[in-house]
Amino acid sequence: MNIDDLPIRDELRGKSPYGAPQLDVPVQLNTNENPYPLPEPLVERIAERVREAARGLNRYPDRDAIELRTELAGYLTRTTGHTVGTANVWAANGSNEVIQQLLQTFGGPGRTAIGFEPSYSMHALISRGTGTSWISGPRNDDFTIDLTAAGRAIAEHRPDVVFITSPNNPTGTAVDADTVLALYTAAQAARPSLVVVDEAYVEFSHRPSLLALIEGRPNLVVSRTMSKAFGAAGLRLGYLAADPAVVDAVQLVRLPYHLSAVTQATALAALEHTDTLLGYVEQLKTERDRLVIELRAIGCEVTESDANFVQFGRFTDTHEAWQKILDRGVLVRDNGVPGWLRVTAGTPVENDAFLDAVRELMKEQSA
Amino acid sequence: MNIDDLPIRDELRGKSPYGAPQLDVPVQLNTNENPYPLPEPLVERIAERVREAARGLNRYPDRDAIELRTELAGYLTRTTGHTVGTANVWAANGSNEVIQQLLQTFGGPGRTAIGFEPSYSMHALISRGTGTSWISGPRNDDFTIDLTAAGRAIAEHRPDVVFITSPNNPTGTAVDADTVLALYTAAQAARPSLVVVDEAYVEFSHRPSLLALIEGRPNLVVSRTMSKAFGAAGLRLGYLAADPAVVDAVQLVRLPYHLSAVTQATALAALEHTDTLLGYVEQLKTERDRLVIELRAIGCEVTESDANFVQFGRFTDTHEAWQKILDRGVLVRDNGVPGWLRVTAGTPVENDAFLDAVRELMKEQSA
Repeated sequence: MNIDDLPIRDELRGKSPYGAPQLDVPVQLNTNENPYPLPEPLVERIAERVREAARGLNRYPDRDAIELRTELAGYLTRTTGHTVGTANVWAANGSNEVIQQLLQTFGGPGRTAIGFEPSYSMHALISRGTGTSWISGPRNDDFTIDLTAAGRAIAEHRPDVVFITSPNNPTGTAVDADTVLALYTAAQAARPSLVVVDEAYVEFSHRPSLLALIEGRPNLVVSRTMSKAFGAAGLRLGYLAADPAVVDAVQLVRLPYHLSAVTQATALAALEHTDTLLGYVEQLKTERDRLVIELRAIGCEVTESDANFVQFGRFTDTHEAWQKILDRGVLVRDNGVPGWLRVTAGTPVENDAFLDAVRELMKEQSA
Repeated sequence: MNIDDLPIRDELRGKSPYGAPQLDVPVQLNTNENPYPLPEPLVERIAERVREAARGLNRYPDRDAIELRTELAGYLTRTTGHTVGTANVWAANGSNEVIQQLLQTFGGPGRTAIGFEPSYSMHALISRGTGTSWISGPRNDDFTIDLTAAGRAIAEHRPDVVFITSPNNPTGTAVDADTVLALYTAAQAARPSLVVVDEAYVEFSHRPSLLALIEGRPNLVVSRTMSKAFGAAGLRLGYLAADPAVVDAVQLVRLPYHLSAVTQATALAALEHTDTLLGYVEQLKTERDRLVIELRAIGCEVTESDANFVQFGRFTDTHEAWQKILDRGVLVRDNGVPGWLRVTAGTPVENDAFLDAVRELMKEQSA
């Protein structure tokens, strides 16, 4: 019995599940994970808070996750200087679920979403998964957003949802507030539409967060995650900040009790240790900047990065380059951008192993 | 700013979020939670396994949840006598997410699902949330399934997805294998379609699980949850058993890394304590049977129950009866079935408080 023998939807036929190859190699720099394990005092605090939550596990969790949303709001306020409250914040199982809930509310059948590609591929995949038509918008050759072309695409397609990823994945490029405002204005001129600024990697950026832009703009949402800066990819905790009406709206489509009591307890513990975790972020920013400099010294082209990863190239045969780096024990990501690969900033030792592998590769190629 | 000022989907306008009223009263018997907190050794084991998982929380969780699916398969095999393996089982954040994934794969825009109502209202809500048209199928007056009428509805509407809830929520009635087989045959005769047997409450049933029916029937799925029998509503762990092709198919729509490492660790800990937890189930079955007998002695009509709750009535003014029980400190559920209310089997003390409240109510009504 195969998938295609089942009465699945036609558009799923012949498709494969999304996901990076999971290979067992010494240095894994392919999924933009934070290389630093949580500090042991935080591990203990998680065990403590989960123990407490487990004592009430026979009851449904707080459906509205009030305590968690309050602490997330506090974190955003402290780190951006823009005050948001509990009513501005919503949380779900990873930013993927946040995006899915937004698309179920503001996208869906008969509606259209646009993103400027290459970008985070789940925007397109979740759009399709929710029956939302997907438009691939353009970028400049240096992977910045071409405002004129983007505005033209918005005017032509009049999308219901606009994704702006900053810093962008897999390119690392960030967007400034003026660009977001211009795209927001263009989008609202075409039709009332939701603009989602995906800031999954913003803690690693040289630029400030765009959070303050939600003020007075009820159709603008900023999405975030604890996977990267909080070193908690395994926790699956994404969140958004927006006008309280947006938070009310996503509750029309969220599955009731979507966020488990153990997830809420673990996230709350991590938020108690924000300062330590943001210290790791500073180390990773230094390593990211070192990767950019050393890759250029080796002779690679490198895209400007505001994230915890670096896009480098260019390779005539991208897959071959990926394989040769892998042969040296280092797993990087081929995101399907012709000529380019993406490497996550790891620990100094991991980054050295990666740089050695690329150095050998470049020698071979120039030999 | 209100929800309706936002560019949300038209069908969401004027809607309210799903969810039982959360009231702070002494005796809460409204959401079919297990009244017994997890035993302290299990709480400790959860803390231990989560501590271990937290040490690797900077990495993404096992995307395929292999260890958890293997243990769930073992549990199903041990308790039903029907052997299933890891490849037969899939897990997600609550059975609601399992159902959402099934509907994204087998339902969706242009497709139709049917359930026999009254039944678990999330089947209809998640159908609508995934763009699947919903057909409300009939039941007999005693809330059993009217096979002739059900077969006629299936032949007429040719649904893509058929929901059979056994034991049924909110009525408590179970379905036998012959009925499921007849509905399966009727459904396949109309068009190749997925039949979902929702066994959320099956551990409380007088009848055996219908799990063995998946053998040789690739379009039949059994869904389960750890919320009830495992006393872990706060954990949000639902799962399904089916042909491996169905498990492959839902992976086309699942969000990658949907199940957190802490959820997987907590569920694995609970599965280590299955025998203790199933002991609580036996106590709850005894209490459920006592509720049926005592409610009848008081003069109530009671629907036969195979679940951890009992549907009782009949009341001329259902809301008034609900309120009067609440005034006595006991929260039960008004599921919108005219004349009937639903009470969860609680601890003996909670059930006594409930029975006292109903006794007084019935005295008032006959006075």
